[in-house]
Amino acid sequence: MSNGLLKGKKGIIFGALNNQSIAWKVAERCHEEGAEFILSNAPIAMRMGEMDELAAKTGSDVIGADATSLEDLNKLFDAAIAKFGKLDFILHSIGMSVNVRKGKHYTDLNYDWLQKGWDVSAVSFHKVMRVAWEKDCMNEWGSILALTYIAAQRTFPDYNDMADNKAYLEGIARSFGYYWGERKVRVNTISQSPTVTTAGSGVKGFGGFLGYAEAMSPLGNANALDCANYCVAMFSDLTRMVTMQNLFNDGGFSSAGVTQKVVERFE
Amino acid sequence: MSNGLLKGKKGIIFGALNNQSIAWKVAERCHEEGAEFILSNAPIAMRMGEMDELAAKTGSDVIGADATSLEDLNKLFDAAIAKFGKLDFILHSIGMSVNVRKGKHYTDLNYDWLQKGWDVSAVSFHKVMRVAWEKDCMNEWGSILALTYIAAQRTFPDYNDMADNKAYLEGIARSFGYYWGERKVRVNTISQSPTVTTAGSGVKGFGGFLGYAEAMSPLGNANALDCANYCVAMFSDLTRMVTMQNLFNDGGFSSAGVTQKVVERFE
Amino acid sequence: MSNGLLKGKKGIIFGALNNQSIAWKVAERCHEEGAEFILSNAPIAMRMGEMDELAAKTGSDVIGADATSLEDLNKLFDAAIAKFGKLDFILHSIGMSVNVRKGKHYTDLNYDWLQKGWDVSAVSFHKVMRVAWEKDCMNEWGSILALTYIAAQRTFPDYNDMADNKAYLEGIARSFGYYWGERKVRVNTISQSPTVTTAGSGVKGFGGFLGYAEAMSPLGNANALDCANYCVAMFSDLTRMVTMQNLFNDGGFSSAGVTQKVVERFE
Amino acid sequence: MSNGLLKGKKGIIFGALNNQSIAWKVAERCHEEGAEFILSNAPIAMRMGEMDELAAKTGSDVIGADATSLEDLNKLFDAAIAKFGKLDFILHSIGMSVNVRKGKHYTDLNYDWLQKGWDVSAVSFHKVMRVAWEKDCMNEWGSILALTYIAAQRTFPDYNDMADNKAYLEGIARSFGYYWGERKVRVNTISQSPTVTTAGSGVKGFGGFLGYAEAMSPLGNANALDCANYCVAMFSDLTRMVTMQNLFNDGGFSSAGVTQKVVERFE
Repeated sequence: MSNGLLKGKKGIIFGALNNQSIAWKVAERCHEEGAEFILSNAPIAMRMGEMDELAAKTGSDVIGADATSLEDLNKLFDAAIAKFGKLDFILHSIGMSVNVRKGKHYTDLNYDWLQKGWDVSAVSFHKVMRVAWEKDCMNEWGSILALTYIAAQRTFPDYNDMADNKAYLEGIARSFGYYWGERKVRVNTISQSPTVTTAGSGVKGFGGFLGYAEAMSPLGNANALDCANYCVAMFSDLTRMVTMQNLFNDGGFSSAGVTQKVVERFE
Repeated sequence: MSNGLLKGKKGIIFGALNNQSIAWKVAERCHEEGAEFILSNAPIAMRMGEMDELAAKTGSDVIGADATSLEDLNKLFDAAIAKFGKLDFILHSIGMSVNVRKGKHYTDLNYDWLQKGWDVSAVSFHKVMRVAWEKDCMNEWGSILALTYIAAQRTFPDYNDMADNKAYLEGIARSFGYYWGERKVRVNTISQSPTVTTAGSGVKGFGGFLGYAEAMSPLGNANALDCANYCVAMFSDLTRMVTMQNLFNDGGFSSAGVTQKVVERFE
Repeated sequence: MSNGLLKGKKGIIFGALNNQSIAWKVAERCHEEGAEFILSNAPIAMRMGEMDELAAKTGSDVIGADATSLEDLNKLFDAAIAKFGKLDFILHSIGMSVNVRKGKHYTDLNYDWLQKGWDVSAVSFHKVMRVAWEKDCMNEWGSILALTYIAAQRTFPDYNDMADNKAYLEGIARSFGYYWGERKVRVNTISQSPTVTTAGSGVKGFGGFLGYAEAMSPLGNANALDCANYCVAMFSDLTRMVTMQNLFNDGGFSSAGVTQKVVERFE
Repeated sequence: MSNGLLKGKKGIIFGALNNQSIAWKVAERCHEEGAEFILSNAPIAMRMGEMDELAAKTGSDVIGADATSLEDLNKLFDAAIAKFGKLDFILHSIGMSVNVRKGKHYTDLNYDWLQKGWDVSAVSFHKVMRVAWEKDCMNEWGSILALTYIAAQRTFPDYNDMADNKAYLEGIARSFGYYWGERKVRVNTISQSPTVTTAGSGVKGFGGFLGYAEAMSPLGNANALDCANYCVAMFSDLTRMVTMQNLFNDGGFSSAGVTQKVVERFE
């Protein structure tokens, strides 16, 4: 579908790695809706990924940036401003836990890795917004989004320290969102169903968990395209006064205490 | 603006009274986006209102129905089905408290009036969905919305028994939303900023409260048009997997603990 | 255990039916901690129950009252005041859904029964507090509690219309709690694990659900005695500034997104 | 008051600095209720404080420990175990933001300071629990508490990066609380009214904010003694099944959308 909802809007999309990535789908859908944007990812991720394909398909530039580096972010935003002038939207789809990758148990965390994951997964969102703030490069009624997960509110054991990172990330959305209000820019997070991406698949026990989440969601799990569509709605002018919110795109999982399909496993 | 987002979609909009009504703006925006719909309101409200003007403007039929009457609702839905076949969206924007109107204090409620307000403001949403459920008249990926207020979560003294009605209404959205999931239909509530409507104005102390809410919202209060735009997004195919949620359209009020503008009044 | 925590405190306990009732355990524990109280229940429930045994054990009077009747409540409170002077605590442990009892599905509710259940389960809490308010019979730093369930926040299909009643009940706690603040009285709800009581057992599918809740709670389900202990803490002077809160006594269920024991059923 | 509620219980209390500290009041009240404990604080804080006075008054040992140092924490817990055997309770009342102290604006954070504050205010709670976990030194039905603030949920501009630290701290309580469930130990946070302590006073605009919070709380602000009493209840056997919760001790602030006293400032 395409309705020209984002015609004339310019932005930056962080975190597209390959065609399983949520950010990849967001880029495709934003392009279909008429937006122009720059794609960015960490240099190391770019070497692994297939971003050139996405760039060609969407007519976008790719600019590598370590989102934990103010220097890299400054260069990226300077390039975006040079190309577009002011921006209308930003997507932050960045997350990584070394403790998860290396199989460290939550009760036995490596604290250097903890800090690394916190910096990449959460503080980077502050850094992105801070650079945009300093350059005063967002148009009025612009929209900034980050992707998160309900582990920020409830415990999912295998999600490990990413849970606390997501709580911090959502904190940043509210805290910085308050100041962006002065400039008529909104900041929100979308809390997405578990999604089969390169990052998601790395989580231990993901298969059983995915089945549980599906059974626990009255509409089933939302997929990457569903999330991309919600992002389009949040970038569009239809949601101008929605800010500092955490929005569940999860088929009802967050409001289900139990479902018939789940109870049946216990009868 | 118009993007044809709701092209081909059919629905019923409850609660448009005059051009200050949120439902009025929703109808205008849905029409602009290509939807067709029937307008409905209580017969008594229709006599007071200017619905014919809206009907003409949007090419809609007006069908009176007391939303607390299963008989009336059955007739309304039969007419809608006769005209449209299956439906894609429903807006419930109905609320009224006799205790508020008559100035009864919350500690001194009249319980007959309490029941009347509960039936009109909350149970009517169950009845609307139940009639739609029995007639199996919603298309897959349809969307049902009701309007609510944050008094369902926090106390606003002058909102009186409407607060408890809204808590019940949001309960219905979750409870019935669970079952609608089986039919791939979503049910949500939008929790709107205080809005100057015929209904809202009747609340005692509304002026001071409106100023407070404005000062407490980083983006300011959302108005009726903002709400209508959010409704369009929720009726569109961009938000298919969002269900059983209460969505704040409030300029950030719900996530603001305090703001500089509010603190200044206490320094 | 007994620590004289409630020595000198007087109250009314609604809803003890038999020794499976939560209110029964609350009465026992309050007695152990030195409180004096009147036991009350609906006349019909009293005929079915064994309240005389509890009355003898705790040295309490039993006074029947239909908690939906202002007349009955006035008589009850007059008797309590005559005996004790002012009161320090009230427990509301009253709930009943005719739709649940008669097996009516949520999509097919009988609305007369809906109203009856709403009046008994939720509005009765308003009526109890309103009579206490009018008689101005609560001591400063008194404590009013009602028991509730997490179905007020998330959907549990077999809980049916009781979910919406509990949402309304919690609304009343906040709404009336605001006014009680003026008199230095606190109002809270305790949201308890599913508990095997005469009322709870009547819910369809209760067995499978109980097992699920146990597996989903890091500490397991809280039982009636656990709840009674929490009530003692909330009636004591240790929690004077806690008001308008919904307090989960559930072994962590409300904060668990999933547990290892639950995921295993899906692997 | 004293009811011997904590008789025989042993613990560690982090964060008492002087008689304005909440942890100081907690220590006094735990002592009155019969508990024995070790007092701990950062070596630098101990030089500034008057902990010897508190130690003498409560018959406690004082053991300095930098709560961000696993080495220090190991020594502290070894000493506690040597003295008490297993422990029953831990209080974490530790928080500090260099950005707040140095007046750095949230949009202009120093990231080294950010990390320092995160480590001290939030990660230290993980480290404390991890050392206790590794030493397996908590008795069944033990209770672990940390103090937090509602800035974790809503924005209070002058609270700066402490808001995100508190969100992370509450995340840790849930995440680690899940595992402690296996050992029948509960973990909770108490979210306290703004309190005039040495730490609190350092926050810019604290005066105006304190007045706002008082006006916004139906029971007024909770003070340090109120908080200490709530801690006693949470350490006692009255609350055994309460875990992974964030408990507001705030006179109703968190559930007040507005109050008459606040609206009056806007009329």
